[in-house]
Parts: sequence; C-alpha cells; structure tokens
Amino acid sequence: MSQASVSGSVIKSYLIEPDGGVLVDVIVPESERGSKALEAESLPKVRLAKIDVEWVHVISEGWASPLKGFMRENEYLQSLHFNSLRMQNGTVVNMSLPIVLAIDDETKKNIGSSKDVGLVGPDGDLLAILRSVEIYKHNKEERIARTWGTTAPGLPYVEEFITPAGNWLIGGDLEVLKTIKYNDGLDHYRLSPRQLREEFDRRQADAVFAFQLRNPVHNGHALLMNDTRRRLLEMGYKNPILLLHPLGGFTKADDVPLDVRMKQHSKVLEDGVLDPETTIVSIFPSPMHYAGPTEVQWHAKARINAGANFYIVGRDPAGMGHPTEKRDLYDPDHGKKVLSMAPGLEKLNILPFRVAAYDTMAKKMAFFDPSRSKDFLFISGTKMRTYARTGENPPDGFMCPGGWEVLVKYYESLQAEEATPAAVSA
Amino acid sequence: MSQASVSGSVIKSYLIEPDGGVLVDVIVPESERGSKALEAESLPKVRLAKIDVEWVHVISEGWASPLKGFMRENEYLQSLHFNSLRMQNGTVVNMSLPIVLAIDDETKKNIGSSKDVGLVGPDGDLLAILRSVEIYKHNKEERIARTWGTTAPGLPYVEEFITPAGNWLIGGDLEVLKTIKYNDGLDHYRLSPRQLREEFDRRQADAVFAFQLRNPVHNGHALLMNDTRRRLLEMGYKNPILLLHPLGGFTKADDVPLDVRMKQHSKVLEDGVLDPETTIVSIFPSPMHYAGPTEVQWHAKARINAGANFYIVGRDPAGMGHPTEKRDLYDPDHGKKVLSMAPGLEKLNILPFRVAAYDTMAKKMAFFDPSRSKDFLFISGTKMRTYARTGENPPDGFMCPGGWEVLVKYYESLQAEEATPAAVSA
Repeated sequence: MSQASVSGSVIKSYLIEPDGGVLVDVIVPESERGSKALEAESLPKVRLAKIDVEWVHVISEGWASPLKGFMRENEYLQSLHFNSLRMQNGTVVNMSLPIVLAIDDETKKNIGSSKDVGLVGPDGDLLAILRSVEIYKHNKEERIARTWGTTAPGLPYVEEFITPAGNWLIGGDLEVLKTIKYNDGLDHYRLSPRQLREEFDRRQADAVFAFQLRNPVHNGHALLMNDTRRRLLEMGYKNPILLLHPLGGFTKADDVPLDVRMKQHSKVLEDGVLDPETTIVSIFPSPMHYAGPTEVQWHAKARINAGANFYIVGRDPAGMGHPTEKRDLYDPDHGKKVLSMAPGLEKLNILPFRVAAYDTMAKKMAFFDPSRSKDFLFISGTKMRTYARTGENPPDGFMCPGGWEVLVKYYESLQAEEATPAAVSA
Repeated sequence: MSQASVSGSVIKSYLIEPDGGVLVDVIVPESERGSKALEAESLPKVRLAKIDVEWVHVISEGWASPLKGFMRENEYLQSLHFNSLRMQNGTVVNMSLPIVLAIDDETKKNIGSSKDVGLVGPDGDLLAILRSVEIYKHNKEERIARTWGTTAPGLPYVEEFITPAGNWLIGGDLEVLKTIKYNDGLDHYRLSPRQLREEFDRRQADAVFAFQLRNPVHNGHALLMNDTRRRLLEMGYKNPILLLHPLGGFTKADDVPLDVRMKQHSKVLEDGVLDPETTIVSIFPSPMHYAGPTEVQWHAKARINAGANFYIVGRDPAGMGHPTEKRDLYDPDHGKKVLSMAPGLEKLNILPFRVAAYDTMAKKMAFFDPSRSKDFLFISGTKMRTYARTGENPPDGFMCPGGWEVLVKYYESLQAEEATPAAVSA
C-alpha cells in the first residue's frame, strides 16, 4: 500500500508502485510550453517517423518508468544484454526492449556538438526537446539478434523500422511539448498510467489484473478473465478490477486494425460477456515488436506502471510464426517461463492461463480437458480471421454475436476495397 | 573477509566469496567411486565430445559456481535472456554463457524416462553421472543469436560444436567420477579454484588481480599487469597477487596453441618481465566462445570463484573479426561497458586498461600518449603472428627475447609440417 499526495490531501492507494518509485511524466506544464517551444525552434532538429512518435507517447506518460527519454548507450546495452536496468540505488527494473531513436549520418552531422535537439513530428510539428543527447552506433544486426533471437528476414518491426533506419542512435531526456493525440476518434480510450491509477483508486480497486491483447476478444478470453476475477475473489481480494488493455501502436498488416478491435471490445462489454462495472477498457499506446519472451516482459512491466499487480499470460505471448521456417518463432511456453523469472518483475503476480478451446459437447468455450480432448476444437487467430473473411460462422458460443458482426463487416469492407480498382495517383 | 575451516583450524582469508557462497565441487570422493562407477554402468549413456569434457571439467571444480551441472531449461533461459541466475534466496549471480549438453534424437530415445544418465568420454571412459535430468529443445538459432548477437556463418564455436550438435539439451546435477586430466604435460598448471584459493591464502594475498589471455604475453601486457600491481599497492593493499590465467580449452585454429603459450609464459617469468614472487601462472580450463561482451562476463565471473577480486579488461575482450563483414564483430568498448554493468558482478572490481603500444622514441612498450600519437606503433595479434611466421623481428622491447624465440620456433615447426607431404591415410 502506498500513499500519494494529490491536491494537498493524502489518498490511500492499494496500487503497486511504479518502477523506480515515481511515475515518469515528461510532458511540459502548460505554463512553460511557450518558452520551451521557442527554445526548441532554435535547436538542431530530428525528424520523427510515426513509430518514433508512438515511443515518445509511451515514454512521455511513464509507461517505461523510470526511463525519462530515449535510451543512451548504457541503458541500451543493459536492455540488450540483461533485459533490465540497474538504478543508482542498486535496485533493478525490468527493461527488455531497447527504446531508441535512430538517426542518419546527415542528421548526426547537423546536430554536431549540440547538447539538446528538437524533435519534429511527421507533419512538421515541434513535439519535444531531447536534452543532454548522446549519439552512439546503431548496430542493427546485434540489436535484432539479441532482441528477437533470430536475424531471419521478414520480422515485421525490423523490416518496417530498423532495416531502413539510420546508423546512429540518439539518447537523451525528453521534454514533450504537449500530450500526444491521434485524432482518430479513439483518444478517449488512451488513458495514461496516471489516469488509469486515478480510475483504479476511484473504483477502490484492491487488485488490478491486466490483459494484454492485439486480437478480438472471444469467449475463451472472456472465460479466463472472468475466471481470474473469481480466483482473485477467492484469494480474499474484495474488488479486483480488470484492465482490458489492447495494444494501440504498430501491428503487422494482417492483424485486425485498432478501430475495429475497439468496436469489437465495446460489443463484448455491451453484450455482457465482461462486466463493465469491474472492467476498464483502455488503449496501450506501445507498438508491437513480435519479440515473444523478450517483448512479454515489456508488456508486463508497462502495466506495473499503470497500477496492475496481476498479469495474465497465455501461450506464446507476443509470438508469431518464424518468418522463414515452418514453425513458431518461439517455444510457446518460453514466454511465461521467462516472464516468471524476469529481473525487476518479482513484485508482479504472473497468472499463467489454462488453455481455453471450443467444447463441442457443451457448445461453448471452456477450459481444455485433456481427458476428452477429441471434444475440443482449437480456433486460432488465423482460423478466426478465415471464418470472418469467408463469411462462414464460427461455432455457436465462440464469440458474442455483436462482436462477431463487427469482424464480419470489417472483412467485407476489406474485400469491397480489394475489388475496387485503385484510383490513379499522381 | 571470510573464514574457512581447513583441517580443523580456522584460517582467515581476505579472498572474495565464491558465487552462491560455497564453491561447487562435484567430484565424487575416492571412497564412493567404486559404487558410483558401478551405478553409472547400469544407466543409459550419453557420449561426450571433447568440448563437453572441457565443460564437465569447468563445472566439476566450481568455476561456474553455483551451477552444479549442465543447465536445465530454467537456468538456460535465464542465462540466455538475463546473463544471470536468480538464486532461491533472491540473490543474483552472473551466468552469461549457456553451459549446456546437447544430445541427438537417438540418445534422447535411449534415455527414455530414466532420471539419471551416465556420461562417457570420447575414449569410452565413464566420466560422470548426470542426476535428475531434464531434456528440452535445443533451438540453435535462438541460442546463437542471443549469445553472439549475430547468426552469420563462420563463428568458430558455432561451426565446430553447435551446428553439428543434437536437437536436444540435457540438464542435471553432475557427479564426476574423478578429476579431469589431459596428460599433455600441462596438468600441473591446471589448478582448481580451490587450489588457487589455497595458494593465494598461503601467499597471504590481500588482493588478487586476474588477467585472462589466449595470446602470448608481450611487454605491453606486462606493463599493464605491473602497473596494476603498482596501483593496488597505492590503494593500500600490502600483497596483491597476479593470477596470469591463460585459457586452456578450445581456441580457434589460428590462435597460438596452449603448449606453445605456456612455454612462452614461462620465459616471460624466467626473463623477469613478471615477478614470480607475486605471480601465479595457471590454466583456466574453459573453452572460448569468441562472444565478446557476453563472454567477458563469464571470464570475470569464473575468476571470482577462483578468488580474484580485481579483473583487468582491455579493448574488445573475447572479440574477433565479424565472420562475413569487414569489421570487428563487437564494438571494442562494449566489453568493458557491459562488464561494468553486469548483474552479479557488482562485488568484482573491474580495471579497464589503458592502451599500450610500441613507443618508437623510447624503444619500448608504453602507455599510448595521444599528444604524440605518431611516435606509437600498434602491433596487433595478427601483426605479431605475421612477424613470427615470416621470421622478421619485432621492434626491440616488444617482447622478451626468450618468449619471442618460443613463438618463432613454433611457426618454423608449423612451416616444416606444411612443407612435408601428408602421409596417405587409410
């Protein structure tokens, strides 16, 4: 139990402490924006890609606490080799993904020996200042090998953002000129760790369990979320709150897009599959790496910062097929094993989940019973997308009808788009 | 300062504690050898390659303390992802290289559900029992990528020992039937961590500084070892002892072989370049991985177990050229940076060394002085070997004459061998 002083009064909170003890918030206060913006104008500039802005967003709100900016080399090396950072006081926090900003030779030359740089968004807006910068080599091969455990071609994050990136990394402390917004109609879902903590406190949560996902919610997911709540009540918690926390940053092309997923998640709550009273749906602004056991640590760590003390982990978290071989890229059990041993995550309760599948006898999603395995049907994400794409209905009870309809409509619109000849562009 | 009871009397020792608090020793006492050997005979067998025997040696004497055998999956995953192991009491020890035993499908089938297996040496001798075994997948690609930070073809340890190895790893606790000997005339140099600790205590060392090497000792090395001793005396230590600790296991084909190096090291002490009174020359039985920043942690950690509390680290430790690109595989500064931040090595004093080079004005090896850089000649390992191979003399003062002669003779014998037509083999 920790205490925090908000507007002068002391609030008791049962929430887990953020990594490093204090939630990082590097968004410049309103009153200083003018002067900082003026200063930023005068500095050498680094142009950010969309993915960089997602990371600025992540850092600015404290998801990566205690990280205050893009990694300098010491942080980068610790992340790459140890999946953790040692703080000055000797404590260790988890930090499994390098959170770095790449620049090219020309940008490096322009920066010269300037201590600070201005960060400019893809549309030319000044977004932030990076202070006391350090520029170091971007050894892409080593970064990829140590993060993904392979250098095979075809890793989505690598192909999109690392291979084409510059040969230098620039680290420093961020000062973000204003809260990052996307204006896509979903910003109200983007609660910061601070806002989530406030909401958990408002609801007087004595346990928060987080469910990370990048796919539509089917009744198997719902079963285990509801079952987790039941188990937490059994443990003696009075008011466990579920953080249903879809990832909102970059995902690979064949994943279901964020707006469709948010619609689908809404239906799941409307249809009563999950209880709105004890569920908060919010967007986790991080991009996906698809780096399996390395990435699942990041997914869990970021949720500590948002106040979650329980984390549900399933089969092959953040995994995908091997890009060039016919097998899973990661051993499906390694994610939960690595997570349970990860440095800096000792304070988090890891809840490995039992496998849910479609029980053809009970005609609903149920925990898999190996003694009558032939009664169960496993419906993978790929299989689910094939159903929706071909207009075939999945078995009754696989997903709530409202949620399923959202998916079907999305795939219909996709096919309509594909059937329309592309407009001739200049 | 720790206390140990040896033969009933309490000895004060200033030596650093081994990792995990107790030095592992899994060599079966003489009195139990008969019965254990009989038991081993009855077990399913795993045939060891020469490299596996080197690792049995390393584990058996406690170099890898607290590791008591080949890694089970939980240890393997922690090593691969975190370069460290968390002990039951929460403390963390460094463990950067996976110390594993690979088996093929047929061996796995033969073992079946047996809890224990017998380990048989390359010549058919029963060497050890592996207890409570666990068999798990050997994902070579992931192991290589996470250990070396590349999967490029041409890494010596990978090509020789991983690519041809089986698809399974077998972990368990070792019981080694007798001390591993090589009968190569160098076994007297192979002091175990326990023997080294006894020797340091006998000499009443109050500081032990280790120098890892796999190359001949030139006067630049000697300069920095002598300079380190001087610095330790300045710090107030009364009797710092140097552990000159050449690596004795597998090295790549173009490295100078162990027997030649040992002869060369002897000459260096005979010629008075290093003081025999304050130097112990001993062989470190580990094989080389050439895995740079990952491996240097292993090199340092193993020396803690042998009683060293100071570790000298230079440019690009355990590095080599990239196997397919024209560059160093690792950033030459990463080794010492990673070492200085590595989990579990906080208690070790890391001594980064200043660069020594041949000072053409003073006609001796000296610390490089950037203000008159044109006076200095850098003589790389490759350059040194070229001198010795072509019979050209290096500049006066580069290496003591006795040591140099050893190298020249070795390369002469190599050329004589190459000139002799190979005998026709059956």
